[in-house]
Amino acid sequence: MSWNTFGRLLRVTTFGESHGPAIGAVVDGCPPGIPLKEADIQPWLDKRRPGQSRHTTQRREPDRVKILSGVFRDDIITEQVTTGAPIGLLIENVDQRSKDYSAIRDKFRPGHADYTYEAKYGLRDYRGGGRSSARETAMRVAAGAVARKIIPQVEIRAALVQMGPHRINWDNWSWAEVDNNPFFCPDAEAAKVWENYLDSLRKAGDSVGAVVEVIATGAPAGWGAPLFARLDQDIAAALMSIPAAKGVEIGAGFRAAELTGSENADEIYIHDGQARFTKNNSGGVLGGISSGQDIVARMAVKPTSSILAPRRTITRSGEETEIVTKGRHDPCVGIRAVPVAEAMMALVLADQFLMHRAQTGRG
Amino acid sequence: MSWNTFGRLLRVTTFGESHGPAIGAVVDGCPPGIPLKEADIQPWLDKRRPGQSRHTTQRREPDRVKILSGVFRDDIITEQVTTGAPIGLLIENVDQRSKDYSAIRDKFRPGHADYTYEAKYGLRDYRGGGRSSARETAMRVAAGAVARKIIPQVEIRAALVQMGPHRINWDNWSWAEVDNNPFFCPDAEAAKVWENYLDSLRKAGDSVGAVVEVIATGAPAGWGAPLFARLDQDIAAALMSIPAAKGVEIGAGFRAAELTGSENADEIYIHDGQARFTKNNSGGVLGGISSGQDIVARMAVKPTSSILAPRRTITRSGEETEIVTKGRHDPCVGIRAVPVAEAMMALVLADQFLMHRAQTGRG
Amino acid sequence: MSWNTFGRLLRVTTFGESHGPAIGAVVDGCPPGIPLKEADIQPWLDKRRPGQSRHTTQRREPDRVKILSGVFRDDIITEQVTTGAPIGLLIENVDQRSKDYSAIRDKFRPGHADYTYEAKYGLRDYRGGGRSSARETAMRVAAGAVARKIIPQVEIRAALVQMGPHRINWDNWSWAEVDNNPFFCPDAEAAKVWENYLDSLRKAGDSVGAVVEVIATGAPAGWGAPLFARLDQDIAAALMSIPAAKGVEIGAGFRAAELTGSENADEIYIHDGQARFTKNNSGGVLGGISSGQDIVARMAVKPTSSILAPRRTITRSGEETEIVTKGRHDPCVGIRAVPVAEAMMALVLADQFLMHRAQTGRG
Amino acid sequence: MSWNTFGRLLRVTTFGESHGPAIGAVVDGCPPGIPLKEADIQPWLDKRRPGQSRHTTQRREPDRVKILSGVFRDDIITEQVTTGAPIGLLIENVDQRSKDYSAIRDKFRPGHADYTYEAKYGLRDYRGGGRSSARETAMRVAAGAVARKIIPQVEIRAALVQMGPHRINWDNWSWAEVDNNPFFCPDAEAAKVWENYLDSLRKAGDSVGAVVEVIATGAPAGWGAPLFARLDQDIAAALMSIPAAKGVEIGAGFRAAELTGSENADEIYIHDGQARFTKNNSGGVLGGISSGQDIVARMAVKPTSSILAPRRTITRSGEETEIVTKGRHDPCVGIRAVPVAEAMMALVLADQFLMHRAQTGRG
Repeated sequence: MSWNTFGRLLRVTTFGESHGPAIGAVVDGCPPGIPLKEADIQPWLDKRRPGQSRHTTQRREPDRVKILSGVFRDDIITEQVTTGAPIGLLIENVDQRSKDYSAIRDKFRPGHADYTYEAKYGLRDYRGGGRSSARETAMRVAAGAVARKIIPQVEIRAALVQMGPHRINWDNWSWAEVDNNPFFCPDAEAAKVWENYLDSLRKAGDSVGAVVEVIATGAPAGWGAPLFARLDQDIAAALMSIPAAKGVEIGAGFRAAELTGSENADEIYIHDGQARFTKNNSGGVLGGISSGQDIVARMAVKPTSSILAPRRTITRSGEETEIVTKGRHDPCVGIRAVPVAEAMMALVLADQFLMHRAQTGRG
Repeated sequence: MSWNTFGRLLRVTTFGESHGPAIGAVVDGCPPGIPLKEADIQPWLDKRRPGQSRHTTQRREPDRVKILSGVFRDDIITEQVTTGAPIGLLIENVDQRSKDYSAIRDKFRPGHADYTYEAKYGLRDYRGGGRSSARETAMRVAAGAVARKIIPQVEIRAALVQMGPHRINWDNWSWAEVDNNPFFCPDAEAAKVWENYLDSLRKAGDSVGAVVEVIATGAPAGWGAPLFARLDQDIAAALMSIPAAKGVEIGAGFRAAELTGSENADEIYIHDGQARFTKNNSGGVLGGISSGQDIVARMAVKPTSSILAPRRTITRSGEETEIVTKGRHDPCVGIRAVPVAEAMMALVLADQFLMHRAQTGRG
Repeated sequence: MSWNTFGRLLRVTTFGESHGPAIGAVVDGCPPGIPLKEADIQPWLDKRRPGQSRHTTQRREPDRVKILSGVFRDDIITEQVTTGAPIGLLIENVDQRSKDYSAIRDKFRPGHADYTYEAKYGLRDYRGGGRSSARETAMRVAAGAVARKIIPQVEIRAALVQMGPHRINWDNWSWAEVDNNPFFCPDAEAAKVWENYLDSLRKAGDSVGAVVEVIATGAPAGWGAPLFARLDQDIAAALMSIPAAKGVEIGAGFRAAELTGSENADEIYIHDGQARFTKNNSGGVLGGISSGQDIVARMAVKPTSSILAPRRTITRSGEETEIVTKGRHDPCVGIRAVPVAEAMMALVLADQFLMHRAQTGRG
Repeated sequence: MSWNTFGRLLRVTTFGESHGPAIGAVVDGCPPGIPLKEADIQPWLDKRRPGQSRHTTQRREPDRVKILSGVFRDDIITEQVTTGAPIGLLIENVDQRSKDYSAIRDKFRPGHADYTYEAKYGLRDYRGGGRSSARETAMRVAAGAVARKIIPQVEIRAALVQMGPHRINWDNWSWAEVDNNPFFCPDAEAAKVWENYLDSLRKAGDSVGAVVEVIATGAPAGWGAPLFARLDQDIAAALMSIPAAKGVEIGAGFRAAELTGSENADEIYIHDGQARFTKNNSGGVLGGISSGQDIVARMAVKPTSSILAPRRTITRSGEETEIVTKGRHDPCVGIRAVPVAEAMMALVLADQFLMHRAQTGRG
């Protein structure tokens, strides 16, 4: 991982600002011969796309991805496949609403990266958040769609499990329900509560945090490594690299701090000739290496700091002032973080699959 | 980060098993001219060393570090300094108690890496946990001591803030107290509670999880980067790479999920001509870049799975059985994770300092 | 360096095939605040562009570069500058002549990558050479133009010093002459010889190799490192990564093998208070680190294997056959390698400048 | 490659100075289950060891390597094998002759790294050359021995093919002869010429350059990649990273510049059902990827600058002076570069084998 590149062997480099002509990504290191067309990527982008309900920002972007390179078909290879060359992906920015940015040009929005960008770089592209815009995550979703094709044996799904103070009831979990509500909520009951809660927040011009849970099913035992190529370390880095993420946990996570050793360790037995575990406090990772169980991670997302209430802040020239962040914003950015978390998990797992294959010769 | 190397510009590579002749590390990329002698490293190792109270494993290792390379002094440069060459560090293993490992050779300890190592590599060095031994963390502490010398303006301290169900009272926080009890506990009241709690656990042959909080003071605004060299991402990776870590959070962390935008964002004002923040929910990181506030992270540590109660497990040949993990173990490995968390934070910050200096020419 | 990314801190990732919709690059790690507009890049691309004389391929591409991201200007910052974000660069492919590729689809062209791509990937994009097309080097030239802006104190120039058996006379060297002939030849006499020689080769449908010399002036002493971040190692890797390169040398290069120690070492003296060297057999690099002298490297370029004479080869299905490679080809690809060699040198030096600044705090 | 680490997946990090307590290396990313004991490494070190004839430096070091980690054996696995953990290697420095270094402390030896180290780091460890000592290459040879075990199907051999102005006759090439003379010379005739030549140089207190040729037999078609993981690029970087290397070439190398396309390209035919090439101007690499032919590279080594004739130089304080470099030196360092070149080729190939297996699933 360096600057704008994620991954060791499957390497994704993203570029582009919210208000430039386009955003893009290069997915490098993809194995050859994998079927890949734009229609494999677009559905994941559509899931992430804003403006699909009143609960997300009303910025409207078609987010049409183009594959610029790295794929091939001809008269003989009629299904388009990857060639092993880098896959260039591009999405043109369409809805670059020309507006007056002078307010945020001169003031630092609290909770945003304005102050730190300026401290680091001496300047910043303030239009639409520039590089820190949630828009960048579209390219992660596109790259993640490629990653999924590399490890088709693994199913990667995420859901929102907490919105503000309201958690789901895990006993109600239904993957089918996730697509039935605008929150990626696996608990129909909770979804109703959230709907009212979010409506009231939106009316108040406020926002709220959330927790995303991402689960990967089907990864074999053996992916990861003991020290600095740990699977759980990579997942933590991947999820924490998502804008607004403030916490990451694997399996029992912070709850593990409260457990005794006799409560925590997942016992092992044999079922149908296979090793099985009595529960999954480990979250599918032991000693940095996958155990064959579901890989389970959660990410805490903070509320967006773009709210209607005026906040104290300072100007670029160091004077105290107030700011109100108007515009098209998500009252709960955690919702749209769900497909992004899936994508980052897919990127980690595909990379670890390649690392494992490199060292051991097995998949 | 790759296999056993951590960092981009300040790169630490560790090697060695618990029961081999020695463990070691190479610290590469260190700036030249920095005063460094073994006495700068040893005190941090002494903090981590086991066997200093009844609350940690009774394995007794002097953990004497030797600097093998990368430093220089002569008649003119009388204070030993770094040369810019890689710094080789070595600790000889002394207490390699010769014992019978046949039980863990043939059985997988639940909650340990035994099963996943075997699944990945087809074999494992089971003596003392091999590469997954907590002993490896001694080299991180040694490397972290070097990192501290690179950024002397930053003070990095950690403490245990939760043991099992018992949290400290943050209002009681005293750094002075941290060295007054065997738990690195900043709350004298909590320390008393923990002492009794841990005694009872140890007698029961059980163990418990914990939460470590690490705080870095003095880092300027500007370290980090927006995407995949984020400061918070690096901290998450660094802490999650510590054995037994199951969760990581920055600033308000998982609590941020419960907050509204109006509650969460730290407002900005001017004090003594400097930007100040009304609180520190961000944990000192905005948009992946340090804000100049204290950098605050927490890590959840699971209980060690080595306990006296028999647990169900399977043998290497796939038969169901039971195992009891005897031996010298920490009832709360979170305690000894405290100096390790400090070291990993130091490594991240020194690396980010160099990255920032590279890109911007400023420190 | 990995897959399609070059550099450690200044990282260039290229993508795109000859006959896809576009080729592109991401230049990551660029310092902020550097003036950069398309007009800074285009002239270097124009130098490399084919079809400018009868001596290069008649493929005609305008090679118009677009900057997609990483730059900024507004009412206050009126000169467009870099922001520190990744710089996306794109060139649309225009002249994708639709033609019949069935000959090279089924046969491996000797001396080309056809056989090895197929052996590695199991398939290949044979249209226009796919990823191995010289077209990819346009993006290196574009990225190199960015690199030059990072180290404006360094002037990087290259020239063709040998075409087939005909070498220049180094005593005739004139940088002014380099732009006066279609060969980037610094020796007016040699240019005349080459013109006739190349005309005869083109008529014969043959091609020829060449040697490029690249010289960087103005780099201070101190860039590079002793072992695996050596400046000369990086230059060797950079030049050898150019398609058709078969050899690289620094300073006296292979001639150094013939010299005695008393002949070879450049003695040091003082001139105007500065260290000077009596000659430059070292090529400006001592122990992997720049000495402040001109950095001098040479690269041998093989003749293109696309010639009119029929050659023995085999088909994909393993049958012996013959092939004639028709089409628009360079009789001496070494000519167009000149701006590419400059670009790669610029990328190496800008990266090493950042590495040096990281470790030592000096530029 | 960064600072002191070489390789992407098989990663070697070296440390240690000539006159410190020890030199060492960490070989990381090695596949598990590979038989490895010290006796597999020692013979290669013995080949490189100085003091075995009058033609190399008389410094006498036993160069006994110790494996500190990453291997395992027990009652069941009785042949020691790698575990997949990092392999720590250590050689203690024995012959650290205590002598007066004041001459080179204050003066820069022309042709050495003294001036550039001082320019970069502001200080240098001048004892025995510190990090730039040829002694560092012992660790590369040790690491290369591990690499060989990863790709046992590949035989890697090198020879000296030119000493000063005296080249071998390639028609006389005999691998058997290489071990019959103290020069690793494959041509018995040339060896006699060299012996007299080197005796006269040594008596004159002078030194001379050389060319090493390294050949890898048995690598399959498919290792390498088109752009920045090119096999030829990696070989160039690997060989150029050896101290005193000034040039690198693959296959026809610089001679390719003189050839026409009709002369250069190796035609392809079928023999015993396998693709064969009529000659090997490509040096076994096409488009950055191995072709299955022998991989052939050459490296030019400059003469050591440590000679008895006084040379002009300057002091650290910038005054002109003279220097004579006494001590134990190799009149032709190219001789001892032979096993080092083999080791670097082995490291490149083993790394590329792992990279290829990662991306394609094949070996």
